[in-house]
Amino acid sequence: MIINDPAVLAEVTAAFQRYETALTSNDVETLDALFWVSPQTIRYGITENLYGHDEIAAFRAGRSPVGLMRTIDRTVITTYGQDMATASTLFFRQSAPGKVGRQMQTWMRTPEGWRVVAAHVSFLVQPTG
Amino acid sequence: MIINDPAVLAEVTAAFQRYETALTSNDVETLDALFWVSPQTIRYGITENLYGHDEIAAFRAGRSPVGLMRTIDRTVITTYGQDMATASTLFFRQSAPGKVGRQMQTWMRTPEGWRVVAAHVSFLVQPTG
Repeated sequence: MIINDPAVLAEVTAAFQRYETALTSNDVETLDALFWVSPQTIRYGITENLYGHDEIAAFRAGRSPVGLMRTIDRTVITTYGQDMATASTLFFRQSAPGKVGRQMQTWMRTPEGWRVVAAHVSFLVQPTG
Repeated sequence: MIINDPAVLAEVTAAFQRYETALTSNDVETLDALFWVSPQTIRYGITENLYGHDEIAAFRAGRSPVGLMRTIDRTVITTYGQDMATASTLFFRQSAPGKVGRQMQTWMRTPEGWRVVAAHVSFLVQPTG
């Protein structure tokens, strides 16, 4: 198993960046396209647990486009062989001041391109002072 | 890419169950063994963001063993080819009544067996009534 083959890492990094741009501009068509069209696809969001591409697409379609802009930090993308990868990042939203977001995705190469097969987004629980 | 080859799925299911038993009994040695020994390994926990196996092991060593018992629900394990898998599950702890936990892991086959390369654990944010 070759970890972080440079060509594969470049491909996944481009897909990750495409997702980030689509997310922050609420480009629902691209977001839907970048998730694997399968009942096996899972997305645990901050306030929702979505099983299957249909539930994920329904969530995207109904989501408010307000306050999605964010900055990201400590992003780590790792590739495993030619066809699988994980992407983990912290994020910070102006609409959620003081909160540390975490996004973790697993990506798979498909004939149509790289697709997210599993994703989990949450805010870190911080001690209240 | 063969999705959910039965033999692979059986292997990962066994590894997932071994992890669950180790977690709920706070078997730190097994928990450490089941995470990939790499600086690339990431675990986002409910109250911590851990980068690399060293940080994950230090967290396990310092964790209170109280209140780790849990039940799980809606578990979905998916395998991608022979060497990669994801495992997603909801969980419920008696020590966190009313809260819906989510755990998502990405597993990789290594020469020593299946290992978690990325994990994310959080509680769903529910509307306050």
